[in-house]
Amino acid sequence: MNRHLIRQARGDEPADLVLKGGKVINVFTKTIEVEDIAISDGIILGTGIYQGKREIDCSGLYISPGFIDGHVHIESSMLTPTGYAPLVMPWGTTSIIADCHEIANVKGIAGIEYMLASAKRTPLDVFMMIPSCVPATSFETAGAELKAEDIAKLKDRDQVLGLGEMMNYPGVIEGDDDVHDKLDAFSDRIIDGHAPSVFGQDLNAYILAGVKTDHECTHAPELIDKVKRGMYIHLREGSQTKNVLDLLPGVKESYLSRLLFCSDDLHPHDILKQGHINHNINLATKAGLDPLSAIQMATINIAQCYRLDRYGAIAPGYFADLVLFKDLKHIKPDVVYKKGTLVAKDGKALFNPEPLLDATVLDSVHFEPNDFDFNFHLKQEIVNVIKLVKNNITTRKFIEEVTLTEDGDVVLTKTPGLLKLFVIERHHQSGRIGKALVRGYGLKNAAIALSIAHDSHNVICISDNEQDALVALRKIKEIKGGIVLASQGRVLDYLKLEVAGLMTNQSASHVKDKLESMDKAARRLGVSDEVDDPFLSLAFLSLPVIPEIKCTDRGLFDVTHFKIIPIEAGRS
Amino acid sequence: MNRHLIRQARGDEPADLVLKGGKVINVFTKTIEVEDIAISDGIILGTGIYQGKREIDCSGLYISPGFIDGHVHIESSMLTPTGYAPLVMPWGTTSIIADCHEIANVKGIAGIEYMLASAKRTPLDVFMMIPSCVPATSFETAGAELKAEDIAKLKDRDQVLGLGEMMNYPGVIEGDDDVHDKLDAFSDRIIDGHAPSVFGQDLNAYILAGVKTDHECTHAPELIDKVKRGMYIHLREGSQTKNVLDLLPGVKESYLSRLLFCSDDLHPHDILKQGHINHNINLATKAGLDPLSAIQMATINIAQCYRLDRYGAIAPGYFADLVLFKDLKHIKPDVVYKKGTLVAKDGKALFNPEPLLDATVLDSVHFEPNDFDFNFHLKQEIVNVIKLVKNNITTRKFIEEVTLTEDGDVVLTKTPGLLKLFVIERHHQSGRIGKALVRGYGLKNAAIALSIAHDSHNVICISDNEQDALVALRKIKEIKGGIVLASQGRVLDYLKLEVAGLMTNQSASHVKDKLESMDKAARRLGVSDEVDDPFLSLAFLSLPVIPEIKCTDRGLFDVTHFKIIPIEAGRS
Repeated sequence: MNRHLIRQARGDEPADLVLKGGKVINVFTKTIEVEDIAISDGIILGTGIYQGKREIDCSGLYISPGFIDGHVHIESSMLTPTGYAPLVMPWGTTSIIADCHEIANVKGIAGIEYMLASAKRTPLDVFMMIPSCVPATSFETAGAELKAEDIAKLKDRDQVLGLGEMMNYPGVIEGDDDVHDKLDAFSDRIIDGHAPSVFGQDLNAYILAGVKTDHECTHAPELIDKVKRGMYIHLREGSQTKNVLDLLPGVKESYLSRLLFCSDDLHPHDILKQGHINHNINLATKAGLDPLSAIQMATINIAQCYRLDRYGAIAPGYFADLVLFKDLKHIKPDVVYKKGTLVAKDGKALFNPEPLLDATVLDSVHFEPNDFDFNFHLKQEIVNVIKLVKNNITTRKFIEEVTLTEDGDVVLTKTPGLLKLFVIERHHQSGRIGKALVRGYGLKNAAIALSIAHDSHNVICISDNEQDALVALRKIKEIKGGIVLASQGRVLDYLKLEVAGLMTNQSASHVKDKLESMDKAARRLGVSDEVDDPFLSLAFLSLPVIPEIKCTDRGLFDVTHFKIIPIEAGRS
Repeated sequence: MNRHLIRQARGDEPADLVLKGGKVINVFTKTIEVEDIAISDGIILGTGIYQGKREIDCSGLYISPGFIDGHVHIESSMLTPTGYAPLVMPWGTTSIIADCHEIANVKGIAGIEYMLASAKRTPLDVFMMIPSCVPATSFETAGAELKAEDIAKLKDRDQVLGLGEMMNYPGVIEGDDDVHDKLDAFSDRIIDGHAPSVFGQDLNAYILAGVKTDHECTHAPELIDKVKRGMYIHLREGSQTKNVLDLLPGVKESYLSRLLFCSDDLHPHDILKQGHINHNINLATKAGLDPLSAIQMATINIAQCYRLDRYGAIAPGYFADLVLFKDLKHIKPDVVYKKGTLVAKDGKALFNPEPLLDATVLDSVHFEPNDFDFNFHLKQEIVNVIKLVKNNITTRKFIEEVTLTEDGDVVLTKTPGLLKLFVIERHHQSGRIGKALVRGYGLKNAAIALSIAHDSHNVICISDNEQDALVALRKIKEIKGGIVLASQGRVLDYLKLEVAGLMTNQSASHVKDKLESMDKAARRLGVSDEVDDPFLSLAFLSLPVIPEIKCTDRGLFDVTHFKIIPIEAGRS
């Protein structure tokens, strides 16, 4: 430790910066004291009474350690790290534990490297958990396949903390070699879990394999059971999945230090509207949790779980990551400091990082729409149909009778409401297309296509006619990824997601505005009110781990039996 | 993780060992559940309902994770690690965080290596904090001088966790180079503190330098202040220094996870009589602390502070270090398991490790008594005297008038109760002797000598006559270290401490019996009832960091002014 910092801490020399007389929140003792905070070289020297070369009067303001998101996929914001940081930091977020699972499915190691490099252009501390499940299943084609030896190479990078959420919990529990090779490679690091409704002996086996955290709890008994077995539990509040209020009855003082907050997936409009981790805190506080306990769950608890020694508290030696606000019951930061530097004021970021333009991630859409065969070539009229469930990403498997053309294609006009879904492999230009029939979405004389399609992020397209599908897909290719609406032979509107087909370097408000106007346009084109989000509900139609029936580039996927099935019902 | 363990955890194969139906203590949730514990390869696979190749009925017994001593000097037991482990493990201790500061002062790195190697012969997990202050001060001669580059070499050893208690807190706060070199060398490890009554900005500076723990708190406000600044606090209960009851008012649920138990220094008779860390738990429980909170402070809290991932809890993946007992309000273990192996039953160790006979540490007493000049050679009659304080290791500086012989020696018969104290450098055969006058000890026609003399562990000898002093010192040399009583020209009794002059490979009960009989003999020779322990009170007379006046091999030491002073009063 530099000797001049020691002299400043003991009060013999003035500190670089002193925040005077704020209501300082101590996350160790959960107390508030009016005192000064002395800061030099981005580090907190101590609290008490201090003189500084620069002094700022903070009377009347609470001062909390900067908030940490314990588990987040930046890609869900559709913004690159250089766009994401200015969006979340004004809400008090000063560090995040990111898992770049989405871009890794498109670009593998190069995608992870891009995220690390882009993040370094911002003041936000982006710590990385290396994606563990690329591809997510063997029933889809991702842009990369990451084996244990590939990801192990990233282990010792300074931003890397461990292994990202191990979603393949059946593989863990059943002793799958590839899965265990990855766990073993990271056995001396933190391993994040993902084990929805895994209990008892299965949970024991999962934890024994080395998994330390879980963010998939949906009710209090599940949380308690997992804490009991030694896990740290994230209480997640995302755009799609909201668990904080359901889990609050399970929050107890005796094991509060094992509980953390995270967002997992947040869309830009939600961040713009209600904030980030401050929203988790505010929600919990409003529901009756002591606000200092909530702040503890957003700061020191996460730092301890992930072994971020200098993060998450206002105490000597900690980084001066500080959030200043007036109302403890509804935190809306006035000012945010990152390592002693003012980074946001009154909701606005005071920095504007240059986007990283990396040719590799800007070139990720590889397919040839003109070659497509949209014909379903069916051999029977009784077919399996994906039926959407209202406001939900799960689906139901229905059986319907359709009318076929002579060469076996489906005549959609004969079964109103039925749509064609195409999942087009876009990484290796293989020409592979998965096809399915969907009911419950609603669309007329139109097509919607997007290059976000979990988890392999192929291009997904839904349509009631070939012409619009082709127009939409050609545009996707032209703009190198994004979301496109086409109707009656022309492109109505689009959002460019030029970075891996998942993110853009344009501003958060541009993304928000586009998504809102396109949502309205989609509704006008007939998308049902029962569909929560016209685009994300499509993006999840290819995710082969959510029940009951989905479609990947390899075809219709029966999640219950975990296999590809023919569209024709009753055949295997 | 071995696949067969995964299969056993999920219940598809029987575990090696299942403890059936015990009252299992969960230190995460602080709850007790009647359930089975499945164990294989020394690891807990899980709790719940399990079948085992071997099953043991534990109904009616509580099962706790093994206790951990968060900070201990093994040398204080006067037993080597091979003798210490069988002594403490029957009390439920399965791991310790040791700081071998004493032997390091005698033998440097070789002493530390000896402790590590000896500990490996036992089932006890001995984790090591590398001594930071050898020698403790520059006013005494130790057997070794350990610089930052010396101790840094041990940093990556698998038993080593960090840097031992940084007692030189003035050096830390004032920016001493040597001290900071050591702190910097261990900045990525745990650094233990030692900061009695350090508060405010000084404490901020001390913590800023990297110190993480403190075991010197003596009252609740001090504990709270240190927790607030981010420290982990040990509640110590040793033979000499007992803080648990004084600190209990400062124990709060909201920061319980930052509080740990330790013993620091325990003599063999106290361990034999009341136990080890179970005694801290029992004391706290008796005083009203929830026993599960107390157990948490003796298990998972310590493991978390020192980052011992698989220690301190009964959960999947944790080592099967288990303590079984009947009475939660006064823990006296029936049975102790270490990594799944039964190591103690009904208070008896079931293992008997072979002592490590290391020639280096067995040869540590180097001085020539026959060459000694016992004459004080004083130039005036008004002298500084060390006055003992009743039942305390602090002393007072008194001024007395003595009678001198023609050649300046003190005529003790003229000042009844006054004794001569000699501190003889024994590491480098330098012939250096520090001399002092002591009042308040009481001894007639006798001498007591010992090779335990904190912190440099030179040989200390108190006597009212030259002849007995010489006899005692010759015996110390002959037995290569220990404690000797001599009277009227012959050795009355002695305890051999052949390992570095601090420890023995003989049994704990031998040490206890010897110390008891020698205590009685010392009392018969006139040692005052105001002296708590005739031998340890001598051992602390050379410790130059305890007020008010002490004596090292370099002479009389004024602790208040932190310098060597002449025996003659008023001279400098």
